[in-house]
Amino acid sequence: MSPGDASRPGRRRPAPAVVAPPPRSDRYRVLSHPFEPLRVFSADRVEALHAAALGLLEDQGIKVLSPAALRRLRAAGATVDAAASMVRIDRGLVDASLATAPRRITLNARNAARHVPLDAASLSFGPVSGPPNVMDLEGGRRPGSLADYANGVRLCQSFDVMHVLGAFTEPQDVPVQVRQLEMLHAQLTLSDKIPHTFCRGSAQVADCFEQVRIACGLTAEQFRVTPCTYTIINSNSPRVLDGPMADGIVDFALAGQVQMITPFTLAGAMAPVTIAGALTLAHAEVLAGLVLAQVTRAGAPVVYGSFTSNVDMKSGSPAFGTPEYVKAQLGAGQLARHVGLPWRSSNATASNTPDAQSAYESQMSLWGALLGGANFVLHAAGWLESGLSASYEKFILDVEQLQMLAEVLQPVGAEDDDLALAAVEEAGPGGHFFGTRHTMERYRDAFYAPLVSDWRNFGAWSNDGARTATQRAATLWRGTLDAFAPPPLEPARAEELEAFRRRRIEAGGAAPAG
Amino acid sequence: MSPGDASRPGRRRPAPAVVAPPPRSDRYRVLSHPFEPLRVFSADRVEALHAAALGLLEDQGIKVLSPAALRRLRAAGATVDAAASMVRIDRGLVDASLATAPRRITLNARNAARHVPLDAASLSFGPVSGPPNVMDLEGGRRPGSLADYANGVRLCQSFDVMHVLGAFTEPQDVPVQVRQLEMLHAQLTLSDKIPHTFCRGSAQVADCFEQVRIACGLTAEQFRVTPCTYTIINSNSPRVLDGPMADGIVDFALAGQVQMITPFTLAGAMAPVTIAGALTLAHAEVLAGLVLAQVTRAGAPVVYGSFTSNVDMKSGSPAFGTPEYVKAQLGAGQLARHVGLPWRSSNATASNTPDAQSAYESQMSLWGALLGGANFVLHAAGWLESGLSASYEKFILDVEQLQMLAEVLQPVGAEDDDLALAAVEEAGPGGHFFGTRHTMERYRDAFYAPLVSDWRNFGAWSNDGARTATQRAATLWRGTLDAFAPPPLEPARAEELEAFRRRRIEAGGAAPAG
Repeated sequence: MSPGDASRPGRRRPAPAVVAPPPRSDRYRVLSHPFEPLRVFSADRVEALHAAALGLLEDQGIKVLSPAALRRLRAAGATVDAAASMVRIDRGLVDASLATAPRRITLNARNAARHVPLDAASLSFGPVSGPPNVMDLEGGRRPGSLADYANGVRLCQSFDVMHVLGAFTEPQDVPVQVRQLEMLHAQLTLSDKIPHTFCRGSAQVADCFEQVRIACGLTAEQFRVTPCTYTIINSNSPRVLDGPMADGIVDFALAGQVQMITPFTLAGAMAPVTIAGALTLAHAEVLAGLVLAQVTRAGAPVVYGSFTSNVDMKSGSPAFGTPEYVKAQLGAGQLARHVGLPWRSSNATASNTPDAQSAYESQMSLWGALLGGANFVLHAAGWLESGLSASYEKFILDVEQLQMLAEVLQPVGAEDDDLALAAVEEAGPGGHFFGTRHTMERYRDAFYAPLVSDWRNFGAWSNDGARTATQRAATLWRGTLDAFAPPPLEPARAEELEAFRRRRIEAGGAAPAG
Repeated sequence: MSPGDASRPGRRRPAPAVVAPPPRSDRYRVLSHPFEPLRVFSADRVEALHAAALGLLEDQGIKVLSPAALRRLRAAGATVDAAASMVRIDRGLVDASLATAPRRITLNARNAARHVPLDAASLSFGPVSGPPNVMDLEGGRRPGSLADYANGVRLCQSFDVMHVLGAFTEPQDVPVQVRQLEMLHAQLTLSDKIPHTFCRGSAQVADCFEQVRIACGLTAEQFRVTPCTYTIINSNSPRVLDGPMADGIVDFALAGQVQMITPFTLAGAMAPVTIAGALTLAHAEVLAGLVLAQVTRAGAPVVYGSFTSNVDMKSGSPAFGTPEYVKAQLGAGQLARHVGLPWRSSNATASNTPDAQSAYESQMSLWGALLGGANFVLHAAGWLESGLSASYEKFILDVEQLQMLAEVLQPVGAEDDDLALAAVEEAGPGGHFFGTRHTMERYRDAFYAPLVSDWRNFGAWSNDGARTATQRAATLWRGTLDAFAPPPLEPARAEELEAFRRRRIEAGGAAPAG
């Protein structure tokens, strides 16, 4: 029991109610924004940043390290210097590309209850994706394995607030030629949520698409008009689209699958030291990728990605969840809405361990995403060490925070009965509300029931081992994995998936490009 | 260095810049809101809650356990049942009281550079106030002492983002009759910021006022029109104002000092289980206190306080920083603005240790306050264990987070030069920005420099002891105390303060009321 904060003796302690709230996880499957996004730029400055980015693409251009992409851009009217791999794009071509890009996308899962909308009102979460290492309290930090990768899929599948899958870690015990086959196979057999695909050359991407198509039970024609996997396209800031990324844009556009074009712009390092400068550069790079996607196939589903943070000017180290990171999120959301695209952000921290710093930096990142109006948040659970490690405990701590934010998005009832005047009368001055009819009718789902937060008093908590939230999270992820059962998959699809995987592995897979 | 999140090999690592950003703390002295507050209620539902609270005061009334306060209320036109200590207040009296309450208040410190505005645009922070215990990593949890209390004052004085003082802990090694004398003396000699006063009976309050008056160098007449200390008035929800609190309202109103009327309403325990119900009850209680203050002295400075959270329905334990807590903050801010008063909120957590839970619950609380448009946040640094402990480490962790939020409030430059097109050209495709003129001109104060966050890579961090943020915070609070020097105080005032303190202690002080 807390003191009233005027801190006087004689405070009453409410009696326990001894009831167990039921799980309420279903409400996290589809989230949408109830709040107006916050703005850091006036409307005319958003227009100025957009105009500056257009000018940048016209005057300075962008380097594109893919002959095939260069050919497509030239054919569409861009000015291409093939020897320098430089492309200049006039604003008319950008406008035309923005006109064909869809404003609303649906990611289609093999289970229709897991479809994920990507539009101006929606909000969805994906896990940390891509770290070479994993970390847990007991096992410490180590290179990620296929077993860890599969655990990441299982953890994502286990929480409704995790809307899509990702690459929890890079399975370094699997040769690179067949790694993508194992990753897609794990996603498609252990989960019925949206799978994630890496762009590491067209041959690998083609394998991944085929696996997703089989799992979703689609024909090749159906697959081409049904977004059911997504990838991240990172430009190589400043102003470079490398080969695998440029080819990935083309592959995903042709296949009608979702690409999130995300410049990774660290202000002061690979981007200007000002937030507005870093965002202008990032905006130009997204637009360049968008143009390549749209000239490849008009209507290709593209998400506006942003990942702008700052470096520590003392060390050059990247920092995340900083004040500048939050302000960049708010600004990036404005730019994404300015061009009418769904917007992707991230939950990031530079902390090396799942401690208080990791929690407050993640909270800063999450609130920045939420308040900026993000429609998709990658790395929403598990990211640690500037993205170099996936942490099992951090995953659980983040899921708790995502669930809490999802609850904040739910409306607050304020009809006359919610105002509870009769209950106030029933309780009387100095009384309590545990037993009032108003409470009894509502207590079961009145409040969020936490996953890892411990609200017991100091004595009860101490007697139970005085464990930190991170230690409790360790128990929770193990328990989640122990209880895991994969979702049903039609036997015919499962067999076809397994046959495809075996055949492609026997054929040696496909080497990554780049 | 973080991977681009498409996770491919061959990423560049920026070279370190090896520069030390200067301290930027001065910018935290006065904060204001750049963002529109978020809303959970439509305008008509805000009006409905307000009307329900008015009806509650008219029909059900509130118990006031002070004969003197009852007399003042009756004289002003309230309906008083003296035998039951019940007061019914009609809406005309509430409206009249709202009309005389000031919309803008300035808390005047003895150092004019430390004045604190309390109005619709302002934002200021005070420390945890009132816990009986303190906690630190080395010393564990123990009853608070006067030495701890003084340390709390020193810590507040050391960070500009802490705008006012508070009772870091209850100094339990000091007899209650003289405790208030020691607390005020410590605040007034170790700090030049706004002191905090407890309301524990008129005799103690009178001593506190005299100490503050001396420290500020004011005559009795000047003191009465110069707000320079503040207190928290907690109603005893539901619908009770106890003696010390009611008398405190009167004492502070007569003295022209600032009272923050704060019902502590735990939904499901001492308040209805619905957020709207808990807020309606709290709103009625604030209005009742406001009426008592205004009928005592028209124009008395009153802050609208709110502290609505929920209990764990399994155990009856209070919870803080929950989704319901955040939504209640947003709603309370709407109600405070509806009646035109400055609004006070809190940074709270139920965690028993300064771990990840304490950080994410505090972040939730802080964002709720910020987004709700809070003008003052009490318990902003150091609160732990549902307010039963002040934590030295948590204080530092919170100061870091407050500084980060203060930075988020600063504007983002977006003039043409901020867009950095020339720097982008100078860096070239695939280049970096460390050495560009644009960076060199700005790097010194481009980014927030953290207090406790560690952004080094895993190897450097591990080699330096792999300390958590909480462990680093332990070093920081000790270092802050070691480096502490009290601000100057005119010798005549210091002597007068010391003489008053000695005289009152020799006279036995004053027993607390209630």
